[in-house]
Amino acid sequence: MSTSKITVRSATTSDVGSILSLIHELAKYEREPASTVEATEESLLNTLRFTPPHPTSQNLASCLLAFAPSSPEPVGVALYFTNYSTWRGRGGIYLEDLFVKESARGQRIGKRLLGELAREVELMNGGRLEWSVLKWNEPSIQFYKLLGAVVMDEWHTMRVDGKALIELSKVGEGIEGKSTTLM
Amino acid sequence: MSTSKITVRSATTSDVGSILSLIHELAKYEREPASTVEATEESLLNTLRFTPPHPTSQNLASCLLAFAPSSPEPVGVALYFTNYSTWRGRGGIYLEDLFVKESARGQRIGKRLLGELAREVELMNGGRLEWSVLKWNEPSIQFYKLLGAVVMDEWHTMRVDGKALIELSKVGEGIEGKSTTLM
Repeated sequence: MSTSKITVRSATTSDVGSILSLIHELAKYEREPASTVEATEESLLNTLRFTPPHPTSQNLASCLLAFAPSSPEPVGVALYFTNYSTWRGRGGIYLEDLFVKESARGQRIGKRLLGELAREVELMNGGRLEWSVLKWNEPSIQFYKLLGAVVMDEWHTMRVDGKALIELSKVGEGIEGKSTTLM
Repeated sequence: MSTSKITVRSATTSDVGSILSLIHELAKYEREPASTVEATEESLLNTLRFTPPHPTSQNLASCLLAFAPSSPEPVGVALYFTNYSTWRGRGGIYLEDLFVKESARGQRIGKRLLGELAREVELMNGGRLEWSVLKWNEPSIQFYKLLGAVVMDEWHTMRVDGKALIELSKVGEGIEGKSTTLM
């Protein structure tokens, strides 16, 4: 089946309800309890980059939505942000979440969304597109490998959050000359 | 030894030579051939967020530099960018590279840099600080665990780059309503 009837567009602020609904479906698919999703329509409004932009958003991540023909609701979503490779001195894209509704699978919507992100990486003169996948999700891993992705199996990802993050933040004494922008 | 005599500041454009030199030292430490580092002073100028900002930079990553007392050259570097958690609807920081010169180790400079980043995550109302570490680098993994970090061992990181990225980008047909900003 061709992907040509699938439309992909950037999210607008009026999509936050649909985005949140897709996030909940993704959590269910990833076998997470419903309480895992702390995001709300308000938190999405205040953090995502919309087209046109939302004035009070931190613009931390962008969102693509995929629509099947004559479907008013999106059937697929890709949430992503730019990343950076020090070795290359170039940017790239990290895909935080990719989800296609079960009823819309088999139409290459996931591949189309990944293709748009690869195209964005090329347009920004970037070097790589990266994402994470649960190790038990073998069908997805095989799908990604067919698209040319490789597993970065020499690396561990480390995370600090919650109480440990608060403790570690106390080691910070302040950054001299820090600008007032977010980063 | 206290960390209080260590100064941490944001990078300025005049630091690019020092930053590149630290990147080369890091590559050597990570057992990479010198050719791994494709970054140049010019590519750093065009991609990093400086204080004050460089007008033609893509502002893809920020850079903290650590200075020992009366040392004009930085002895440590942290390169990082903001990331995003869909579950939480909140941002965070991804630390792309952390390096402390061998001659300056044992002064808790690495811990101080991580502490500043944890503080930044708190200041942005973010949820987590993340980074990657080579699996063979057991001393660093132990050091990170002592700081409260956990290994995200249920996940694989996937990457598409090079020719596979160009192939995948051809699947992209264009994003409707895309703004002219980078993301």
